[in-house]
Amino acid sequence: MDKIVALAKSRGFVYPGSEIYGGLANTWDYGNLGVELKNNVKRAWWKKFVQESKYNVGVDCAILMNPQTWVASGHLGGFSDPLMDCKECKERFRADKLIEDFAQEHGIELKDSVDAWSQEEMAAWIEEHNVPCPSCGKHNFTDIRQFNLMFKTFQGVTEDAKNTVYLRPETAQGIFVNFKNVQRTSRKKIPFGIAQVGKSFRNEITPGNFTFRTREFEQMELEFFCEPGTDLEWFAYWKKFCLDWLSSLGLKEEEIRVRDHSPEELCFYSKATSDVEFLFPFGWGELWGIADRTDYDLSQHQEVSKQDLTYFDDEKKEKYIPYVIEPSLGADRMVLAFLCSAYDEEELEGGDTRTVMHFHPALAPIKIGVLPLSKKLNEGAEKVFAELSKTYNCEFDDRGNIGKRYRRQDEIGTPFCVTYDFESEEDGAVTVRDRDTMEQERIKIEDLKAYFEKKFEF
Amino acid sequence: MDKIVALAKSRGFVYPGSEIYGGLANTWDYGNLGVELKNNVKRAWWKKFVQESKYNVGVDCAILMNPQTWVASGHLGGFSDPLMDCKECKERFRADKLIEDFAQEHGIELKDSVDAWSQEEMAAWIEEHNVPCPSCGKHNFTDIRQFNLMFKTFQGVTEDAKNTVYLRPETAQGIFVNFKNVQRTSRKKIPFGIAQVGKSFRNEITPGNFTFRTREFEQMELEFFCEPGTDLEWFAYWKKFCLDWLSSLGLKEEEIRVRDHSPEELCFYSKATSDVEFLFPFGWGELWGIADRTDYDLSQHQEVSKQDLTYFDDEKKEKYIPYVIEPSLGADRMVLAFLCSAYDEEELEGGDTRTVMHFHPALAPIKIGVLPLSKKLNEGAEKVFAELSKTYNCEFDDRGNIGKRYRRQDEIGTPFCVTYDFESEEDGAVTVRDRDTMEQERIKIEDLKAYFEKKFEF
Repeated sequence: MDKIVALAKSRGFVYPGSEIYGGLANTWDYGNLGVELKNNVKRAWWKKFVQESKYNVGVDCAILMNPQTWVASGHLGGFSDPLMDCKECKERFRADKLIEDFAQEHGIELKDSVDAWSQEEMAAWIEEHNVPCPSCGKHNFTDIRQFNLMFKTFQGVTEDAKNTVYLRPETAQGIFVNFKNVQRTSRKKIPFGIAQVGKSFRNEITPGNFTFRTREFEQMELEFFCEPGTDLEWFAYWKKFCLDWLSSLGLKEEEIRVRDHSPEELCFYSKATSDVEFLFPFGWGELWGIADRTDYDLSQHQEVSKQDLTYFDDEKKEKYIPYVIEPSLGADRMVLAFLCSAYDEEELEGGDTRTVMHFHPALAPIKIGVLPLSKKLNEGAEKVFAELSKTYNCEFDDRGNIGKRYRRQDEIGTPFCVTYDFESEEDGAVTVRDRDTMEQERIKIEDLKAYFEKKFEF
Repeated sequence: MDKIVALAKSRGFVYPGSEIYGGLANTWDYGNLGVELKNNVKRAWWKKFVQESKYNVGVDCAILMNPQTWVASGHLGGFSDPLMDCKECKERFRADKLIEDFAQEHGIELKDSVDAWSQEEMAAWIEEHNVPCPSCGKHNFTDIRQFNLMFKTFQGVTEDAKNTVYLRPETAQGIFVNFKNVQRTSRKKIPFGIAQVGKSFRNEITPGNFTFRTREFEQMELEFFCEPGTDLEWFAYWKKFCLDWLSSLGLKEEEIRVRDHSPEELCFYSKATSDVEFLFPFGWGELWGIADRTDYDLSQHQEVSKQDLTYFDDEKKEKYIPYVIEPSLGADRMVLAFLCSAYDEEELEGGDTRTVMHFHPALAPIKIGVLPLSKKLNEGAEKVFAELSKTYNCEFDDRGNIGKRYRRQDEIGTPFCVTYDFESEEDGAVTVRDRDTMEQERIKIEDLKAYFEKKFEF
């Protein structure tokens, strides 16, 4: 992991946020390569989940929503972490994390996920196992209390309850409150889905693992509306669709696992939930939560808003509240997974090693490096760059020997390098080098467009 | 304007935010077409300002930043609106707006922009002209006081000063604090620029004019770093570049004007500032602010952070703090301008009228409508849809007569419709209809890809 964090910083994928001011607790900024990688990930998701889908359309909703939204969704009442303080050293902890860490350290198998435990069960377990404070080693904790994870702010001049609004903790609710609007304007019939990409905020007590868990994060969520009774079929459909998307972008089978929630773990309204997990260097971590949420969300909003959120099925002549399948993916986690999966150190013939990022060409931040063999050739090479950059994000590099420039492009995951040499001036051709095979081909400049066309398909 | 707001809502461009809960003061959600239009606008900007530019690279920084950022930028001290209350009816107003509205209503010419006036000058003017309260008509105001426009929130468990953070009021500062990081990782030499697209938040007292002024909004900002002394040249370069971008996307000359700030209007650190304005139905409104900000921002951050933010010019062997040219564009305003500019009601032969959105093809939310002449032809038409939607955002529509379907696509600005008819089954060809000319051509299905390739170029 340290290697990936170091490369991310040195090559411009991810910097610590507000770094010149000593940072700000686990915020991160995407650099000149990171922004391209992240945009490519979001585009690849949108392409398969919206553009090519005959079922789904998109929306882009405001981060600030009417607070009644969070009453209906349950976030104002119940979206909280169980916190406890050490009375001795005054450090604050999440009780569930304390239990998980202690159990893992001591090889204790937990009967089920701590998420599903009540506050009392957690307190009892901590007593029973005499769990010590990770900071000072004593065992003298306060009671557990619930801390709401929504960031709050004030809209308007006065800082009072009337003006309190929240930063959305998930993008999903913007979709639910617009269910009728989108159904009407898109003229979609059930089954159909609404997709959204956008920032969400959770005031996590213990963010960490680089960009894996942050307070400000981006989500790619789909809410898929279907007829009750067909939901488990659609649940299976979208689960497979998500897994196919991951493997089509090059994640390996052994890096991915699916964890189906046990009946005790399920939210009371959910008929099925699966987590798609990726093997990060720090262990398995959730990428995608896929849930059959039944009619819970729309029913809640119908009740609180007093608006009719039913759907009229004009073939069956019946009215119902649709069931919802929700595949919810974290964009930052997804980017981190692609960074981890792509990273490789290869032994070359002759004992040399090279660091190479094996990104899927559709995800690579730089698609083509354009490299003049000598600065004398810049004029011709710049013409090639100008032409290719109309279609692809390219980088022009005329500094250092060509071998070093190839290594540098390998390290940032550029799938192809185009080298413009002295012969190019004569034969109107360039050398194209493949990142993965390191093989080189001579291609006419006028044929480059056709040559690359198929290479970046996704 | 009412027509555009109504069409935006009925066709899925823009809905009122949190509508089922009665909305939330001037928040807006982009619907199934709006999200595509906005994404296309952002992509068109990124394509010309980053992808094809040999000078610029991008970043994507966190919304939450270390609060010292806002000390350095001046936002904590000075980013505020001048507010006053009517003592009679308790309504609250922005003093500068009160003056502008009163002056306009009474045909009084103001010597310069009220933005540049001191608090005392505003109070004196209001007294002198005996300006009445727009609500109750009396003239009895409190003193003017400054209200900071940054949204504040708390990170961590306790709501105290130590944990206070702000939602960024502009994306620019994320660029400035990363100037050294990006320069290092991109290996760019001066002159070069850093671009960013992202949400910003300002607690405006009087948002309004649909999506023109909102508290939550998206910006597309470029900070271009250059050698002191070359700044006015680069200022002219980027001003022209911005204007070219607007006209290349179809905005007409008479819809755009450039307003150069007078010396009195300029911020004390700025050598030149121009506003690019668009003629909205409610009047001229700013799209782009283009400013020569000299070395103000980097100097401020250097002073507050105590980090060296100078640049070493290795050709001239000298160290300096670069000057900055900032073209700053509002994405939501830009989308609104394209909506307004595209809207047209055309008289057709025979007295019929059609509503048509003349979007530039690169911006149109739906690129191609795929229309089977009869539902019996769906199978063949769906194949055409599946093939085209790999490259373009398409819509499949098999409902209603073909004339109505054309009108509907005109109204959402779809540049091309592909009609699959009974003959298509025999001759493997379809009819392609052009939105603007309404002319139709017969094209072989296998030639569609090549046919469309040039149509969406930008």
